[in-house]
Amino acid sequence: MAKRIYDNSGRKAEAENTRSQLIAAARKILSERGHRTPFSMDAVAKKAGVARATVYLQFESRGSLLEAVFDTIANEGGLGVLPEAFTEPDPVEALKKFTSVFVRFWIAQREVWPRLSRELADDEAGARLTARSERRRRGITVIVGRLAQKLTLDRADDLIDALHGMTSYEFIGQLIATERSEAEVEALMLELVEAVIRSLCFAKSKPLRNDEDSPVLANPRRKK
Amino acid sequence: MAKRIYDNSGRKAEAENTRSQLIAAARKILSERGHRTPFSMDAVAKKAGVARATVYLQFESRGSLLEAVFDTIANEGGLGVLPEAFTEPDPVEALKKFTSVFVRFWIAQREVWPRLSRELADDEAGARLTARSERRRRGITVIVGRLAQKLTLDRADDLIDALHGMTSYEFIGQLIATERSEAEVEALMLELVEAVIRSLCFAKSKPLRNDEDSPVLANPRRKK
Repeated sequence: MAKRIYDNSGRKAEAENTRSQLIAAARKILSERGHRTPFSMDAVAKKAGVARATVYLQFESRGSLLEAVFDTIANEGGLGVLPEAFTEPDPVEALKKFTSVFVRFWIAQREVWPRLSRELADDEAGARLTARSERRRRGITVIVGRLAQKLTLDRADDLIDALHGMTSYEFIGQLIATERSEAEVEALMLELVEAVIRSLCFAKSKPLRNDEDSPVLANPRRKK
Repeated sequence: MAKRIYDNSGRKAEAENTRSQLIAAARKILSERGHRTPFSMDAVAKKAGVARATVYLQFESRGSLLEAVFDTIANEGGLGVLPEAFTEPDPVEALKKFTSVFVRFWIAQREVWPRLSRELADDEAGARLTARSERRRRGITVIVGRLAQKLTLDRADDLIDALHGMTSYEFIGQLIATERSEAEVEALMLELVEAVIRSLCFAKSKPLRNDEDSPVLANPRRKK
């Protein structure tokens, strides 16, 4: 129990504490193997050992509780360092930093994300989920904008969508699911992202199709 | 009503017809915007205007009905031509054909897949969904195996996982969601896939990793 003092900071701390407990309980449910417990305010109350009303006092809806879980894990997963990617002067390096941040983020989310994303998708037609995903896309768009000299507008759209797909959990999760270490996942992702950036930036038209006898042996980075 | 003849083909045709109606009703529910109707055997019966028992006569479980929806759309989406990719002698071309087939498949699935995949994921801990996804991975593994001379074993794993991620709905869906035509989505995907194959086939070691000082980036798989 938090000690009460003159001001209400004790009460605030207690509320914060309750909130954390509820988020932790929600995470536990979402991380369960086999997904047996339906996710509801009731289930979270029961898991945390509090009254149902307590949950509603802290979170106005199931959706806002899910969002709080997302944000908690986002903080733990280091999404807070994302601004560093934007201050990197070289846009290719900036996109790579952006990618690294999301690799670590999704690795941190991996226990909870598959179910959390489904719950968010079912909630209010997925508005909260779409909003988060669009935020990531906007970040990519800003950095790709700085590559403008090297890209036509069509190609910029292609690159934005490709990187948005590649920095999603669904893509990175495929690499996490195997026996790679975090460092290996990150190194591979940086390599893939760089390959895609180079391909789209240096492509004069949309090339690389049935071009040489042995497509594998041709060197796409060859200039002139 | 199907006409009865001497043998039971009329009855069979009727059963087939009922089955198709139920699958169509299930698709309608899964394609609804906003996802208001919970997906259940009851809801499908109601949508198709038949008794609940009729649904259970055709499908032993909710999961097998979902699977039937998947298979119906798979046929419509042209997954039947997948064997052609495997008979293509050049492995890079084979991987590109494989990619093309899945681009068309996911485009065909796009109305129903987001919700269908969530329902499948919630069903029996996602076993059916995982099985389908693993089938795609095995296809990629077979073709990548033919690139073996150009790849170390680690790199083959990297390529398999990267292509598995890139041929998923979650990745291709990012490209579909915008205003690209089907042909443009396909052309872009072939370009991205080729960029990734080239990058991984050409890399002598894992590059971009010049990072020995960073503990996070140390490579634990490194032998000796």
